[in-house]
Amino acid sequence: MTDAFDVERVLAELTLEEKAALTSGSDFWHTEGVERLGVPPVMVTDGPHGLRKQAESADHLGIGNSVPATCFPPAAALASTWDVDLLDRVGRALGRETRGHEVAVLLGPGVNMKRSPLCGRNFEYFSEDPALAGDLGAALVSGIQSEGVGTSLKHYAANNQETDRMRVSSDVDERTLREIYFPAFERVVTRAQPWTVMCSYNKVNGTYASQDHWLLTEVLRDEWGFEGLVVSDWGAVVDRVAAVAAGLDLEMPATGGRTDALVVDAVKNGQLDEAVLDTAVRRVLTMVAKAQPALAEPGAIDAEAHHALAREAAADGSVLLKNAVVGDAPVLPLTGDAAARAVVVGEFARSPRYQGAGSSQVNPTRLDDALTALRAATGTELAFAAGFSVAGVEGSQDADDAALLAEAVETARGAGTVLLFLGLPAPDESEGYDRTHLDLPANQLAVLRAVAEVNDRVVVVLANGSAVAVEWQDDAAAVLETWLGGQAGGSAVADLLLGVRNPSGKLAETIPHRVEDTPAFGNFPGDNGHVRYGEGVLIGYRWYDTRLLDVAYPFGHGLSYTTFGYSDVAATVSGEGASSAVSVTVTVTNTGDRAGAETVQVYVGDPEAAVLRPTRELKAFAKVTLQPGESRTLTFALDARDLSYWHPALRRWAVGGGRTVIEVGASSRDIRGTAEVTVTGEALHGTLTADSTVNEWLAHPRGSELLGAAFGEATAALDPTMLAMMGDMPMRVVAGFGMGGFDLAGLDDLVERAAA
Amino acid sequence: MTDAFDVERVLAELTLEEKAALTSGSDFWHTEGVERLGVPPVMVTDGPHGLRKQAESADHLGIGNSVPATCFPPAAALASTWDVDLLDRVGRALGRETRGHEVAVLLGPGVNMKRSPLCGRNFEYFSEDPALAGDLGAALVSGIQSEGVGTSLKHYAANNQETDRMRVSSDVDERTLREIYFPAFERVVTRAQPWTVMCSYNKVNGTYASQDHWLLTEVLRDEWGFEGLVVSDWGAVVDRVAAVAAGLDLEMPATGGRTDALVVDAVKNGQLDEAVLDTAVRRVLTMVAKAQPALAEPGAIDAEAHHALAREAAADGSVLLKNAVVGDAPVLPLTGDAAARAVVVGEFARSPRYQGAGSSQVNPTRLDDALTALRAATGTELAFAAGFSVAGVEGSQDADDAALLAEAVETARGAGTVLLFLGLPAPDESEGYDRTHLDLPANQLAVLRAVAEVNDRVVVVLANGSAVAVEWQDDAAAVLETWLGGQAGGSAVADLLLGVRNPSGKLAETIPHRVEDTPAFGNFPGDNGHVRYGEGVLIGYRWYDTRLLDVAYPFGHGLSYTTFGYSDVAATVSGEGASSAVSVTVTVTNTGDRAGAETVQVYVGDPEAAVLRPTRELKAFAKVTLQPGESRTLTFALDARDLSYWHPALRRWAVGGGRTVIEVGASSRDIRGTAEVTVTGEALHGTLTADSTVNEWLAHPRGSELLGAAFGEATAALDPTMLAMMGDMPMRVVAGFGMGGFDLAGLDDLVERAAA
Repeated sequence: MTDAFDVERVLAELTLEEKAALTSGSDFWHTEGVERLGVPPVMVTDGPHGLRKQAESADHLGIGNSVPATCFPPAAALASTWDVDLLDRVGRALGRETRGHEVAVLLGPGVNMKRSPLCGRNFEYFSEDPALAGDLGAALVSGIQSEGVGTSLKHYAANNQETDRMRVSSDVDERTLREIYFPAFERVVTRAQPWTVMCSYNKVNGTYASQDHWLLTEVLRDEWGFEGLVVSDWGAVVDRVAAVAAGLDLEMPATGGRTDALVVDAVKNGQLDEAVLDTAVRRVLTMVAKAQPALAEPGAIDAEAHHALAREAAADGSVLLKNAVVGDAPVLPLTGDAAARAVVVGEFARSPRYQGAGSSQVNPTRLDDALTALRAATGTELAFAAGFSVAGVEGSQDADDAALLAEAVETARGAGTVLLFLGLPAPDESEGYDRTHLDLPANQLAVLRAVAEVNDRVVVVLANGSAVAVEWQDDAAAVLETWLGGQAGGSAVADLLLGVRNPSGKLAETIPHRVEDTPAFGNFPGDNGHVRYGEGVLIGYRWYDTRLLDVAYPFGHGLSYTTFGYSDVAATVSGEGASSAVSVTVTVTNTGDRAGAETVQVYVGDPEAAVLRPTRELKAFAKVTLQPGESRTLTFALDARDLSYWHPALRRWAVGGGRTVIEVGASSRDIRGTAEVTVTGEALHGTLTADSTVNEWLAHPRGSELLGAAFGEATAALDPTMLAMMGDMPMRVVAGFGMGGFDLAGLDDLVERAAA
Repeated sequence: MTDAFDVERVLAELTLEEKAALTSGSDFWHTEGVERLGVPPVMVTDGPHGLRKQAESADHLGIGNSVPATCFPPAAALASTWDVDLLDRVGRALGRETRGHEVAVLLGPGVNMKRSPLCGRNFEYFSEDPALAGDLGAALVSGIQSEGVGTSLKHYAANNQETDRMRVSSDVDERTLREIYFPAFERVVTRAQPWTVMCSYNKVNGTYASQDHWLLTEVLRDEWGFEGLVVSDWGAVVDRVAAVAAGLDLEMPATGGRTDALVVDAVKNGQLDEAVLDTAVRRVLTMVAKAQPALAEPGAIDAEAHHALAREAAADGSVLLKNAVVGDAPVLPLTGDAAARAVVVGEFARSPRYQGAGSSQVNPTRLDDALTALRAATGTELAFAAGFSVAGVEGSQDADDAALLAEAVETARGAGTVLLFLGLPAPDESEGYDRTHLDLPANQLAVLRAVAEVNDRVVVVLANGSAVAVEWQDDAAAVLETWLGGQAGGSAVADLLLGVRNPSGKLAETIPHRVEDTPAFGNFPGDNGHVRYGEGVLIGYRWYDTRLLDVAYPFGHGLSYTTFGYSDVAATVSGEGASSAVSVTVTVTNTGDRAGAETVQVYVGDPEAAVLRPTRELKAFAKVTLQPGESRTLTFALDARDLSYWHPALRRWAVGGGRTVIEVGASSRDIRGTAEVTVTGEALHGTLTADSTVNEWLAHPRGSELLGAAFGEATAALDPTMLAMMGDMPMRVVAGFGMGGFDLAGLDDLVERAAA
């Protein structure tokens, strides 16, 4: 288009009708333009792991075919890299493609928490941990936006399931929102200022996110300092006027002017302050103006380089769960003769499952499959058997499973190693609905069992967007979880299996034994319009670790072809109260015989807190690449926020203080070193009232003094059990019973003196 | 006192001030009288497992010494009898004592659910299951009231912890209240019409129970038909006027006229309708009048007979958890020489822990200890060692544990059997505060370990008011859980150990492995004024069974010295929808060689429900005594309510129907027979609106027809994943996107036609 226009001048000249129009789309993918004032429309497109630029009206849902673009691994795989630098690089590549296709905003990333492995859209989200998701999300956003185009941080907020997602109320207490469901959004906003934030479809505690002033304005802007615009998820606006008043700046997609008219009417009849509408318009114009320089110079896209980057990301996002010693060495990697003697089993080896269904579905520039990649890399026509039918794969889904199984067994018999590609069929995971169980299809597990009976070197390579149960794993000598690997996933898997690349991925989500163990079981996905977040802050490893539940593989777990030693874990505290900080150091050494990367994780525990806190919470991490024998000493700076909990009554972050446990480890259950520090907590007393309990009075410096004097001899007459019984009595009841030597009038006096 | 007065005549002559006075106490334990109108005051006293009639103002908390009365086993033990006839008989005895002491109302029973084993007052409550608690509570109330005195069903409602009990808000959804926390109250009210119901201290979803019109009037009276009066727990009234308006009839204790004056003012200034006050007064007068005949003829109390009944109840309320074969026979019962060669270890054998602390503490007419009882019954001066110190036991609490342990080991060495009495020290369990862990004291477990090293026939006899962890149980050949046995607990234990009586108790609460496994862990006891009932309907065995968690001993478990066989489990369904009923039959046979009693349990599962339901729920039970070889066929009639869940949206009970699983067993994990029936469910469609989803339209007969026609060819063009994605879309979004061939105007038309 042209040079950017002057936002304030345009705003001053707009009619009310134009303002209403500008704060909604012009069609499915474009903002409205105002030709007479030089405001062009801009295009936004789905993401987040690739550009889904669709020809207008390809279909009504906006899901159909789009222009070719690099399909990077979805967030589930990207997150397992634990690599902020890599995420920044992937972001830059995404930014260049966005710009190159003359698109202003890529609609992503999604930083919702993986509350349940059943959520159908988990493949688009990073983690069950908000610090990890926030750090990775911020890196991706920074990378994309460095190219002069925008992002849309989504889906804000408490959107952790697909079931009834357009109506359901996520019923969740504020502490849980603040500690679990908000921080990833908060971190991306404060660190990377995404151009836009996308509100979710669902309600939060009964109010549609698109109409929630607290969410969209008080928390997002007033507290976190968000400077961009809030866009609705497509179709998320229920009451446009209420949405604008709440802080929703842009409704998408277009409604044919229907809701614009409602806005015009609301301003005219005084229901909506025009100044509020002006603010929304200003944000839309600012975003459009900001996009102009990049749109004016789209630039070329280096598809080859992006494919290579996608391959690197897919490799580093794969997690080596298990690598047993068979004979005298771990079964992986396969080198030399072992590689040449391998066979490949499983439809997924030639028909890769590499991304999820729904709005994030990218039309890839090319597509690698593992079978081709393995044959090319080994220079051997490795034997292949499909093994099983896969729903959704053309030419496969109706095949004869019995015959396929028999063929697979014959292929596996006598082979050096069986590379068995299992996974979830595409229809199992999608935007729009949730899974109901964690199992791989029975026909695949039957092949695993049968193959394991004739070969003890079975390597299972998994493709799935969210955790699956691995209770079959005794039949596998090695398990490589690749998640969904994007368009280069096939060659990335070959790199890992053959040892061209050393696995370094770590789990960003726990793999539980069974769905009944998962935190939200019984509370997921809710019913009749409500889902209770009954597990509170205990999601993911916070649940499993605090409840001492056994898991299949813990959060943070991931093997390498080398080994790492941890030593000299130490922590020192500085400052106090809200200025407390803790510095943590650890030395990590590559104790194996090949180069590799390790992600060091720092967890904090606060066992003396006045509220129940998880046993441990991830607060920092770093990925380091080390040569054999090389050591590196890492330092992590934890600030007061890293030590805090959200105080439900004071409604702010609070450093409770006391004994604080710093754990440094290779996973949440592989803690290699622990250091304890004592943090001086903040004074967290509320105001003493007649409704405050005896214990609250006694815990308060001034209250304790007053109460001690008032109780006097009355206290001494009570036995310890009686005193224990009284501890939780509000003073109004103590006074009402005439205990403690004062009545209600006397209590009023005490309260007054406590306040003095 | 005199003959009962005419309630309506008195009401008509009362001044406003007298009305206000009558609806509060005259002191700690009495109602107000109106001498000029012949209305006497009446006394109410604490219970529930015995009369705690206190001299006025013994202390300000009303906890101090009281007149001697039979201390029956507290509810925890009574519940383990699963014997409604026995509960009725205990009730009658309690009624006679209440009457004999000229008391109008015994303040009990408590039918709150055992949401967590940590609740300090669990010993006063029956069960984690509402059907069991309701049946037993109703039997007890009927028994007591058959003597012409009243009861007070408490603590209504959702009062399941002591921590912050006077302020905390139990945040719990309606379905959970209706299915878990209300039904025991409902069952007692509808079956036994207690004279009074006592409201609890806590808030329910933010409103004090004492001021909750929905709770006290709409649910309790309008729905359940309660005819008696609602009395406050002592000191539970926060806003007297609001309480009267909500349906609180009687405030206790007296407030020196302070709150009466508020009521008078409120009526005078129109804030409170005098008719509402009149209703409360009428209820108080009715209760006082109703008590007069019994108070006029108190009658004698047969203390010996009541002690014998207490002994029977304590025996039948004890649960034989484990009884291993040592040598060639189970270690229990001890007969003949084995009895004479036993030794007794543990302070509790001579200093019984037999009731809990707080308002339910009874001053017993006498007190049996197990040591004396065992020596008397065996005619042998069995050796005894105290073994460990016990906090709260005078002369014991400061003893030298090392010396006691050494003495215990010497006593146990070479003994035939070691009867080891362990338990929770009294200060561990009380009204007013909760436990924080499930463990027995370390000094007791040290004795167990040491004794088990020298003797493989250790019988642990437990005394505790709520479940303790039994992870030490491998050191015990047998474990007898006696709960708190009341004043005759000592001799009852002797009866069981020596085989004079055959154990028949069953667990009314699950014994979990560890506190981290318990349903409310992480949500108990809450903080900052709120406790989230995050586990919803999944409490007790509902939680453990649905989540497939291993437990130490399951709900309903209890061994006998004989064995029982179950056969011919069958179920037939009749009626449909809200008139559905299921008849269940089973034949039970005493397959052992001595007489014994078995409690047969009937569980219902509804795996196809539209809401998540527990795997199984107790709906009926029966205790039968059988001679060796004797069989009895039992029939259980389940009604529609037994098949229903509370529909959160329709806000009523609903029979979902479909496959219904009837399990008959000896515990929740010892199912002896299963029958499946198909129940024809109710039509549970709501009204179709623009906000209803595609799936809801398709599930509705008329909606499906209309939508099919409207979608027409548009539907055919969509692939299955796309259709799955659309299922949860509200029709307003479908129309807004222009999918399916109609717009919002077209949708309005569809909605209109669906309603036609």
